[in-house]
Amino acid sequence: MTTMTPLSARSIAAEIEAGRLSPQAALDQCQRAIAEHEEEIRVFSCLAKDWQPGSGPLSGVAIGVKDIFDTYDLPTSYGSPIYEGHQPVVDSALVTMLRQAGATIAGKTVTTEFAWFEPGPTRNPHNLEYSPGGSSSGSAAGVAAGFFPAAVGTQTGGSIVRPAAFCGVAGYKPSYRLFPSIGMKHFSQLLDTIGFFAAQVADAAFVAAACSGRDLSVDERNTAPPRIGVYRSSIDHLMEGEMVDALEVLAKQAEESGAVVAEVSPVPEVEAARQAHAPIQDFEAAATLADERRRHPLQLSDRLRDHLNAAARITPQTYDDARRIANRGRKASRDLFENCDVLLTASAPGVAPKTLASTGDSSFNRLWTLLGLPCVNVPGLTANNGLPLGAQIIAPFGQDKQALQAAHWLETVIRQKRLD
Amino acid sequence: MTTMTPLSARSIAAEIEAGRLSPQAALDQCQRAIAEHEEEIRVFSCLAKDWQPGSGPLSGVAIGVKDIFDTYDLPTSYGSPIYEGHQPVVDSALVTMLRQAGATIAGKTVTTEFAWFEPGPTRNPHNLEYSPGGSSSGSAAGVAAGFFPAAVGTQTGGSIVRPAAFCGVAGYKPSYRLFPSIGMKHFSQLLDTIGFFAAQVADAAFVAAACSGRDLSVDERNTAPPRIGVYRSSIDHLMEGEMVDALEVLAKQAEESGAVVAEVSPVPEVEAARQAHAPIQDFEAAATLADERRRHPLQLSDRLRDHLNAAARITPQTYDDARRIANRGRKASRDLFENCDVLLTASAPGVAPKTLASTGDSSFNRLWTLLGLPCVNVPGLTANNGLPLGAQIIAPFGQDKQALQAAHWLETVIRQKRLD
Repeated sequence: MTTMTPLSARSIAAEIEAGRLSPQAALDQCQRAIAEHEEEIRVFSCLAKDWQPGSGPLSGVAIGVKDIFDTYDLPTSYGSPIYEGHQPVVDSALVTMLRQAGATIAGKTVTTEFAWFEPGPTRNPHNLEYSPGGSSSGSAAGVAAGFFPAAVGTQTGGSIVRPAAFCGVAGYKPSYRLFPSIGMKHFSQLLDTIGFFAAQVADAAFVAAACSGRDLSVDERNTAPPRIGVYRSSIDHLMEGEMVDALEVLAKQAEESGAVVAEVSPVPEVEAARQAHAPIQDFEAAATLADERRRHPLQLSDRLRDHLNAAARITPQTYDDARRIANRGRKASRDLFENCDVLLTASAPGVAPKTLASTGDSSFNRLWTLLGLPCVNVPGLTANNGLPLGAQIIAPFGQDKQALQAAHWLETVIRQKRLD
Repeated sequence: MTTMTPLSARSIAAEIEAGRLSPQAALDQCQRAIAEHEEEIRVFSCLAKDWQPGSGPLSGVAIGVKDIFDTYDLPTSYGSPIYEGHQPVVDSALVTMLRQAGATIAGKTVTTEFAWFEPGPTRNPHNLEYSPGGSSSGSAAGVAAGFFPAAVGTQTGGSIVRPAAFCGVAGYKPSYRLFPSIGMKHFSQLLDTIGFFAAQVADAAFVAAACSGRDLSVDERNTAPPRIGVYRSSIDHLMEGEMVDALEVLAKQAEESGAVVAEVSPVPEVEAARQAHAPIQDFEAAATLADERRRHPLQLSDRLRDHLNAAARITPQTYDDARRIANRGRKASRDLFENCDVLLTASAPGVAPKTLASTGDSSFNRLWTLLGLPCVNVPGLTANNGLPLGAQIIAPFGQDKQALQAAHWLETVIRQKRLD
C-alpha cells in the first residue's frame, strides 16, 4: 500500500490565483509524485518531457490524457502495437481546448487496446494487485496517485465511471457529444463519450468548465439537497453484498442530510434498451477498425480480433433495429426523472477485481452511455478491504450541471459522515 | 467543350458479370480518359499509380475518393497545405468498405480547403470556365468526365448535391450517419455526411448498396410513380428563371407520367431550422480545426482563418440553442411527408457559376443536411447555355431507398421526354 494522495485542481488554481503557489511549483509537485511512483503504478504510455505552465484558468494544472486522443507533440498509439510510435499531425479538439485554458499536458496515459477490454500495464494505486479498471486505466490511476490533478478519458461502455470507482476518484461522463470527439480514435461513434477524472466532483466540474466555457462549475454554497431516485433495476442482483449495503447506508445518510429520497422503478423501454448496446457497439467497431482487422490482424489481441470477426457478421438490419430500440429508450428515459432530479445506482458491482488481466464489469454503466445521460462517479465510500466503492449519479440528458451538483452534494455528505 | 461521357457502374458490373468485359479492361477505359483529359479538368489531388481490380460486386469499378478521406496507401491532405504529403496509417471506414466490395481506388480527388469554400483547381467538364461546384469538386467532375464510374464525397452544407447538379451527374447524400464518418477529416460533426456520385441515380444506389450490404438498390422494373410534393419555401426567390421553368415543366411531365404531384407548404419549425445551420457548423468547425488555427494560422486561407476566428467567439449557449431549434425541425420534418413520398426542389439556384473562384451557393441544400434527410440530385435537365441543371429529391429520415427510387423514376421521365 502506497501513500499517494489525489490533488485538487480547484485548490491548485485557487492557491495560484491567491499568489501562494506558482504554476511551476504546482507542476513540480506532480513530477515528484511521478518520479517516486510511476514504476509501480505504470500510468503513462508516454510521459511528456517538457512541462511548461500555460496561461488561463488551468495554469499550473497538469492533465493526464488517455492515449486515445491525438497530440501533436507526443506519440499516440491507442493502446495498440499497430500504432507504435505513431505521431499525429494535430491535437485532438479536447487537447487544444485544455491547452488554450492554460493546462499542461502531463503525458499520454495507458488505455486498453483501442479503449476496449485488453488491459495495459497500469495497477491500482490503492493496492497493486488489483485492476485500476478500464479502459481509461492510466487516467484514473494517475489522478488517484497524485500524478496530475485531473485527466481526460472516454467511455463507450463504462470506461470513465468504472475506473474512477475502482481508483476512488471523481469521474464525470458528460451528456453524449457535449465535448467534441474530433481527433480521438473511435471504437463506436454513437457511444464513445469524452469525460474527466479529478480528485473530487467539483474538481472535475471545474476542469470541464474551464476548458469548454460551459456553465458546469459547482458552487459550494448554493448546492441544495437534491431529490434522489434510487433506481431498482433488473441487474441489481449483480451487486456484491458490500455494495448493496453501502448504497443503502448512503441513501439513508442523504435523507438525514435533507435530500428527498425515493425508489424509482424501471421503465420498460429503458430496460429494453440494455440489449441494444452490444449490437450498436460491435457493428460500429467492425467498421471503425475495419482496416486494422483487414491489414493488421496479427497485431490485434486474440480477443479483440475474435470479437471483431464476429462483429463483422452483424447485419445492418440488426444494427438499425438496435438504434430504434435505443431511441425509444432515450425518449422514455425522461420518465425516470418525473419525481427526482437524479438517479443513484452503483458505479460497478463492487470493488476492483483482484487481477490485472481484467478491467472489470461495465454492466452498471453501459445503459447510461447508450442513453447519452450525464453520469458521475462519487468517490468516498470504502469496502472492508480498504478499496474504494463508487456510487453513480445520473441526470437527464443535457442536465450535466444538475448531475455534478447532486454528486458534489452527495460527496460532501459522505465526507461529513466519515468525520462524524 | 469536351466530349467526355459518364460511365455507368451498373453497366460495367453487368458486362463483367456476363463475361463480356474484364475488370482490367474496365479500369483501362478509365485510365485512358484520365490520360486524355486530366490536364484540363484537374480532378485529382493524387492519382493512384497501381490500379488492380479487386474481387466482389465492385470488381472493375474505379472509385474517386475525395481527399478528405484517409487512405493508407495514398497521401491525404484535406485540401490544405498544412497536410501536404500527409500519409495516414489506416484507411477511412468508407474506403475499406469500398475495397472489401472489390472497388479500385482511382485516386484522391480535389476538395476545397477542409471541405469548406476555398476552391481547388478543378474545372467543370461541361465548360472549363465554369465551377464544378464544391466542396466535392473532383469527385463530381471526375464522374462527369468519365474518369471513374463512381466517387465518394461529403456534404456539410451542399457539397454533394450541388457539385452533382453543376456537373450533371447523380449525387446521393444519405440520411445522417447511414455511412460511418470514421477516418474522414471533419468540419462539423453534426452535419458532415458521406455520400456518392455516379452517372445515374441507379448507379449511385448500386455502389452504396454494394459497399454497405444495405438494401438500397433501385429496381428498374418495380419502380412505381411516386407521390411528389413540390416544396414552396422562403428561399424560392433565389432560383434563376431557367430553374423555375425547368422545375415547373418537370413537375408537369412527372404528373403526365403517372406521379401524384401536389404543392407542399412550409412547416414553420422546419423553416425556422434554416437559421440553426450556421451556428452549429461554425461552433463545431472552431473546435474541429482548433489546433490548425492555433499553430498554423498562416497556412489557412484568409477567408477560412477569418471565418474560424469569428466562429471561435460563438458561445456554447448559442450553439445549444441552435441544436434545440434543429431538433425541433427534425421532428417537424415528418409533417412535410404527410401527403407525399418525396419532396422536389431545386438542387441549386441555377447552373454552375462562371468562375473558378467560387463553388456556388448551398442555400437549397443546407436545411436538408441539417435535418439529416436523404437527398438525391437528379441529372438530365439542361439550361440554354448547355450546362446542367439539377432537380433535388428529398425523403423522410431513414427512407433512403424511397429517395433513390423516386429520383430514379424522375430521371427516367426526363430521359424519356428528351427522346420524345
